[in-house]
Amino acid sequence: MTGINENYLKLKAGYLFPEIGRRVKAYAESNPQAKIIRLGIGDVTLPLAPSIVNAMVEAAKEMGNPQGFHGYGPEQGYSFLIQKIIEHDYTKRGVKIDEDEVFVSDGSKCDCGNIQEIFALDAKIAVVDPVYPVYVDTNVMAGRTGEADANGRYQNIVYMPATEANQFEPEFPKEKADIIYLCYPNNPTGMVASKARLTEWVEFAKKNGSIILFDSAYESFIQDPNIPKSIFEIPGAKEVAMEFRSFSKTAGFTGTRCAYLVIPKELKGKTKAGESVSFNSLWSRRHSTKFNGVSYITQKGAEAVFSPQGQMEIKEQIAYYMENARLIREGLGKAGYTVFGGTNAPYIWLKTAKGMKSWEFFDHLLQSAQVVGTPGSGFGPAGEGYFRLSAFGKREDVISALERIQKL
Amino acid sequence: MTGINENYLKLKAGYLFPEIGRRVKAYAESNPQAKIIRLGIGDVTLPLAPSIVNAMVEAAKEMGNPQGFHGYGPEQGYSFLIQKIIEHDYTKRGVKIDEDEVFVSDGSKCDCGNIQEIFALDAKIAVVDPVYPVYVDTNVMAGRTGEADANGRYQNIVYMPATEANQFEPEFPKEKADIIYLCYPNNPTGMVASKARLTEWVEFAKKNGSIILFDSAYESFIQDPNIPKSIFEIPGAKEVAMEFRSFSKTAGFTGTRCAYLVIPKELKGKTKAGESVSFNSLWSRRHSTKFNGVSYITQKGAEAVFSPQGQMEIKEQIAYYMENARLIREGLGKAGYTVFGGTNAPYIWLKTAKGMKSWEFFDHLLQSAQVVGTPGSGFGPAGEGYFRLSAFGKREDVISALERIQKL
Repeated sequence: MTGINENYLKLKAGYLFPEIGRRVKAYAESNPQAKIIRLGIGDVTLPLAPSIVNAMVEAAKEMGNPQGFHGYGPEQGYSFLIQKIIEHDYTKRGVKIDEDEVFVSDGSKCDCGNIQEIFALDAKIAVVDPVYPVYVDTNVMAGRTGEADANGRYQNIVYMPATEANQFEPEFPKEKADIIYLCYPNNPTGMVASKARLTEWVEFAKKNGSIILFDSAYESFIQDPNIPKSIFEIPGAKEVAMEFRSFSKTAGFTGTRCAYLVIPKELKGKTKAGESVSFNSLWSRRHSTKFNGVSYITQKGAEAVFSPQGQMEIKEQIAYYMENARLIREGLGKAGYTVFGGTNAPYIWLKTAKGMKSWEFFDHLLQSAQVVGTPGSGFGPAGEGYFRLSAFGKREDVISALERIQKL
Repeated sequence: MTGINENYLKLKAGYLFPEIGRRVKAYAESNPQAKIIRLGIGDVTLPLAPSIVNAMVEAAKEMGNPQGFHGYGPEQGYSFLIQKIIEHDYTKRGVKIDEDEVFVSDGSKCDCGNIQEIFALDAKIAVVDPVYPVYVDTNVMAGRTGEADANGRYQNIVYMPATEANQFEPEFPKEKADIIYLCYPNNPTGMVASKARLTEWVEFAKKNGSIILFDSAYESFIQDPNIPKSIFEIPGAKEVAMEFRSFSKTAGFTGTRCAYLVIPKELKGKTKAGESVSFNSLWSRRHSTKFNGVSYITQKGAEAVFSPQGQMEIKEQIAYYMENARLIREGLGKAGYTVFGGTNAPYIWLKTAKGMKSWEFFDHLLQSAQVVGTPGSGFGPAGEGYFRLSAFGKREDVISALERIQKL
């Protein structure tokens, strides 16, 4: 019989969100009358903006006539979209990015999961704890870690705890770390990194020969004009960082699927023999060998996000979600909870009631208030005793959820 | 500096199709007046069928209203599509497949490239030579091979030559092979496998503890009713095979992106300790950790392929391409070429003129006839001296190309 990749057996019971799905489904089946409110998985609820829908309707029609039909597109993405991304997200903020440094894909989850393939198997990764599980799980699958301990921490990963004690701002790794995953605005804590702090990270990476994988999927939720939206706003960052961006939360693309990864040509790795190799060229090879581009229709939809009308429409949606965030933050505060995040990010990070464990609080909230959130411990052991609520719900659901929680 | 995955450095100069793209671009730039006809990359040219376009237009509109909006979908694909796939592609042909055995994705290139992740790193692969390069390159990247020799054959891969001598029907591997990649109708040779031959493959895999990765992306081009469309039509195949299917060629989805992978629950691998593990469960974990589902709009388009009207429309398209195949086969025959394939597949495999090498013939055809094909050697050393033409062109281009070739 054919051998399996045994690294998969090191993984914990299940990917967080499917596990939540299973528990909610079981509860719903035993309580068919319950009106469950989902503020768990970070899924958007507002419909796609009219500019985006119109662009996709037109693109679908184009695909139906001989002149407008598009077969295989460039694996890296169409120029019409890449140019808009560069102009809007980088040039306007004083950052110079070339077209061949942007790789359009079908999602940041895929990019974050696949990127580790281009690194050496013995490269050591560092992650914040709590963290988006995909960073860790994909490295476990690749064999870059040992077994997990009783707390769920894998051997050979450097964990950087983000706790109340350090105001959720992790310290620099004390051990050697080749690859540092950072996510700002942060999922799950909702915290952001100041320009000063990001500058320190860039300097740390330079000094220690590390590279930073910067996940800025939530940059459009930043309200404070002094907070950087891109790590490339920091001088020298192009030599030490790559950046993940997504239309999922910015423009409601969770079910439409479009994202991009920026890898500056200055960003280099090395062979064991000491030869320097550009990560851009390695990823280009990976992307063109294992991926075949994003749907033309989807890319036309993404392009419309950058039109003046599209920008106006998505800004309204973001304002709607940020008003939800304010309601959750303040509502939970009134109910006596200690809350974090939610001012420059769509996530609110709270301490569970009465020192409950995260999954205990999950079950409590589901059974007593029919509200679904995400257990902090699902993001790592330092998340134990915390809980994440998402601001992506419908306004009436957010209000009902808070009323129910306040009554508990 | 961070270490790179040095397996990438073992890869040959470039993935085949980007290399063709570069040569064609260079020629077009020096010869701006040339009317180049592209029969190289297997890209479709007919527009999407009306049923598919209508379904996607409706789905895009749905996404723009609160009731119809879809966020994250099930990673494995929507039931509405999976049920149609099972009913149409399997139940009707007497094969029983369960919903949780079908994984919808954004392309067979991705599936074929990613599937190797769930196998042991020391599992040995066997491929036909010539072969679709993705099977080989993705195993090189993973470190499952040694270096390539002067002919481009990698150490630690079992090659099964398909040549005129064996009528392009490769013999069973003589060495131990854990994973056997088969593609029928074949890319690039255009050959098919009879029921008897597929039965022998299934028996061989059973006897030797191998599994078969069966790529049937071109099954809809089979004209002979006695040729199996699915390996699962062979009794016992579910214990030894998984199957890759795609809408790319069947329904013109090369720029729309939808495919699926069928992994029967009976298909098992084993740990070093001898414990048996289902590949379905491993892939399910991989798929939900590194992938986030296919666009709702795309899945609605794919669903429309199975409607009675959709079926009628795509059958017309397939008939159009198969008429191209007939014209190419017969036209090349008249021009004195020896040709293979093209009767149950959209590819014609020909011997180059005057014993030219494949890339030499590529340059010759490009420069003398402005026709682009695919060099056989790009698919492996046994493809040297052969050339692939695709039947996916526009009729008038196919006719012009043949006229030009006949004049050479």
